Amino acid sequence: MAPWLTDWRGRFTGRAAALVSPENSAQVAHVVGICARHRIAIVPQGGNSGMVAGATPDDSGEQIIVSLRRMNRIDPIDSETGLLRCEAGVILQNLHEAVARQGRRFPLTLGGKGSATIGGLVSTNAGGTQVLRHGTMRNLIAGIEAILPDGSLYDAMIPLKKDNRGYELKHLLIGGEGTIGIVTAAVVQTVPALLDRCVMWVGVDSPVQAYHLLLFMQARARDRLEGFEILPNRALDAVTQHIPGTRAPLDTAHKWHVLMELVQDDPAQSAPAERASDLLEEAIQSGLMENATLASSEAQADAFWKIRDSIAEAERAAGPALQHDISVPVDAMAKFIELESPVIERQWPGSLTVAFGHMGDGNIHFHVKAPPGVDVSQWHASDAKAITAHVYDRVAAYHGSLSAEHGIGQAKIAEFERLSNPVRIASLRAIKNALDPLGIMNPGKLVPLAKVTMSD
Amino acid sequence: MAPWLTDWRGRFTGRAAALVSPENSAQVAHVVGICARHRIAIVPQGGNSGMVAGATPDDSGEQIIVSLRRMNRIDPIDSETGLLRCEAGVILQNLHEAVARQGRRFPLTLGGKGSATIGGLVSTNAGGTQVLRHGTMRNLIAGIEAILPDGSLYDAMIPLKKDNRGYELKHLLIGGEGTIGIVTAAVVQTVPALLDRCVMWVGVDSPVQAYHLLLFMQARARDRLEGFEILPNRALDAVTQHIPGTRAPLDTAHKWHVLMELVQDDPAQSAPAERASDLLEEAIQSGLMENATLASSEAQADAFWKIRDSIAEAERAAGPALQHDISVPVDAMAKFIELESPVIERQWPGSLTVAFGHMGDGNIHFHVKAPPGVDVSQWHASDAKAITAHVYDRVAAYHGSLSAEHGIGQAKIAEFERLSNPVRIASLRAIKNALDPLGIMNPGKLVPLAKVTMSD
Repeated sequence: MAPWLTDWRGRFTGRAAALVSPENSAQVAHVVGICARHRIAIVPQGGNSGMVAGATPDDSGEQIIVSLRRMNRIDPIDSETGLLRCEAGVILQNLHEAVARQGRRFPLTLGGKGSATIGGLVSTNAGGTQVLRHGTMRNLIAGIEAILPDGSLYDAMIPLKKDNRGYELKHLLIGGEGTIGIVTAAVVQTVPALLDRCVMWVGVDSPVQAYHLLLFMQARARDRLEGFEILPNRALDAVTQHIPGTRAPLDTAHKWHVLMELVQDDPAQSAPAERASDLLEEAIQSGLMENATLASSEAQADAFWKIRDSIAEAERAAGPALQHDISVPVDAMAKFIELESPVIERQWPGSLTVAFGHMGDGNIHFHVKAPPGVDVSQWHASDAKAITAHVYDRVAAYHGSLSAEHGIGQAKIAEFERLSNPVRIASLRAIKNALDPLGIMNPGKLVPLAKVTMSD
Repeated sequence: MAPWLTDWRGRFTGRAAALVSPENSAQVAHVVGICARHRIAIVPQGGNSGMVAGATPDDSGEQIIVSLRRMNRIDPIDSETGLLRCEAGVILQNLHEAVARQGRRFPLTLGGKGSATIGGLVSTNAGGTQVLRHGTMRNLIAGIEAILPDGSLYDAMIPLKKDNRGYELKHLLIGGEGTIGIVTAAVVQTVPALLDRCVMWVGVDSPVQAYHLLLFMQARARDRLEGFEILPNRALDAVTQHIPGTRAPLDTAHKWHVLMELVQDDPAQSAPAERASDLLEEAIQSGLMENATLASSEAQADAFWKIRDSIAEAERAAGPALQHDISVPVDAMAKFIELESPVIERQWPGSLTVAFGHMGDGNIHFHVKAPPGVDVSQWHASDAKAITAHVYDRVAAYHGSLSAEHGIGQAKIAEFERLSNPVRIASLRAIKNALDPLGIMNPGKLVPLAKVTMSD
């Protein structure tokens, strides 16, 4: 059972009375019903590759893990609607492949696709690199099935495009982190397969220049722009140094880089490479970038994306860092990076910030690297907490979110409570208590419940 | 006060202790706070043009109406993001005009645009004729502000594209019919203005043929297809007979008609008329339609839409009818119309069905006209209720919704309770009671609360 008791980042370890692995919704309902009767807390678990320990039990040894992994059925795509039913335990990469074999595409993708399951992706409202065009998981879910905390089945698997019958439980389950029910199946929207794509690598002098490039590209390429990722040169350096087979796409030096993907999925559209060349030429003439190159083959396109997808691994190899998955309004992110990074580096001498990721969504992964040669456990005990609190304080000052795509889980629950508007927290508590009155559904995750004092 | 005590369709009249018309959110909060302290029930009201009496007080005379009409400020569009802040009392048509003056478009539109307010449109998750491409109101809301039942301000007006901090209260307020708070402002997404459009009128032999035409058009025109509306010939006849200045677009006879709109909002796209001609030619050759014509001018395009938009008025002039705003899965709607209509007409001799509307969303307005010459009040007392119950029973058998876009309000609450899965009703009640524990927010609407029995 050991692998399922520790979170993916290895920071939280719990114990569990049992790991239960049902093979269908009826069995999940049965298990939840028993737990409700005996007030046993349940930790739902998919691929166990979340970033905030949302699927790790506490250390009481009294909770049980309900693993959805055996529920991995994928139905064929409905040829008229493009919809597909699948069970919660389906691994994202398997879904990608099944959909591709039928000539279509499931557009949501992210680094953990080899382990992340549909149930986990729904429960964390996962994002990734194609959100700019296709939205987060919320946008791609047409139907949902869940077992609620009393063991009852909530079946909303019939996809209705319009349905105004009150509060949508679906929208609470999506991103609900298993705290008000266990998602057991979903109907997902597939999209037409790509006919062609053009991946571009662009050198820019600053996040602000990258942001103006984003505005230009969105105005001109509209939803043919599927990806817009930013990285500082120090992240590129880390990748080329630590990840074999990678090299810088441009031979000119730039402080910042942008990876853009322009796609064609409709025969009526112009060829991506042609459209991309025209746009890049115009962008360079307008002073929106310093230099750019187009991937000349699918292999090169993959190589560009590999750089982006290897940043986390390269940064891990380069040394310890604090990671923050943050968002601010899209039009404020460039300013956030430019103004806040030097403040942190001045306040904690030797620390280095690395801001990279989904600039088009106003969401970056904001790493703060430990000073070289520092004693890491001492750093974690001293500066680390203050740095993270400072980052989240600044995010709050920009009216942003301390969790753009990873969720709250256990890892962020204290900071979430500290920084959230009490009105927001109060409604979360009210909803949680209403839908899980026994408090057995993934307790201690997402919702900072009021401390129970002696007088209660 | 009289105009605000009766619903738009004139079927529900209530009384009220007062009508309060605050001019800003702080005043709304103040009023709600007072009501919470004194347990006074509140009926939020926008344009008072809803279809289900969701904004009409009960007949106790103890409720107060909180009218949002004076809160009608519209901020300028943010030039980078296309977002716009406006207050709840803004009338949709005024929003359309303000956005158009700034060179963009707010795409949601519907018959009641001259009276419907943003707050009401949010609270009912309004639909209309452009949902096929742009979605319902839910899809167009980037930020929301509301006063919750305890008088607290819920401010989620800063638009974050990605934010995974738990249950989204926004998604409960949208479509919540004012039962868990009063929406006071919103941030809406505007879209690029149309450069050109082509409106087509198509004759088909059946809803099934229309459905296959829909699939063809969506596969080929993708999201350039903005509207796909269906109507039977008897609805066209009613319009040309009762609405001055209208005439049938085709001189050939058809059992059913389809109105389609293909748009251009990107200079990179081909001209709509050209693209539409190509597609229609191919569709006729493939046997997907009987005949078709393209509007040759904006005036003619408006004339085609006027037919569609006049159906409700023409049908009212033609005689009494029961109206049902229903949805089923998109791929089942044609079958529903074809199989269910004759059953009703046989079972209630003399009655006639008229199914028209948003076929592309699986949502039609399903009218059942009273037999000619019948005593209307007697018909309402005898057959009407049974017919409506029958229609909703059949919708339920197709796993559809008895409210696709109008909401539940008072008008549908009993049928909603009768036909809904108890699990769904239980979660609605739990959420309602958790967020409005005093039960002062638009009581008697949307949520069928458990009957209080003597033993409670």
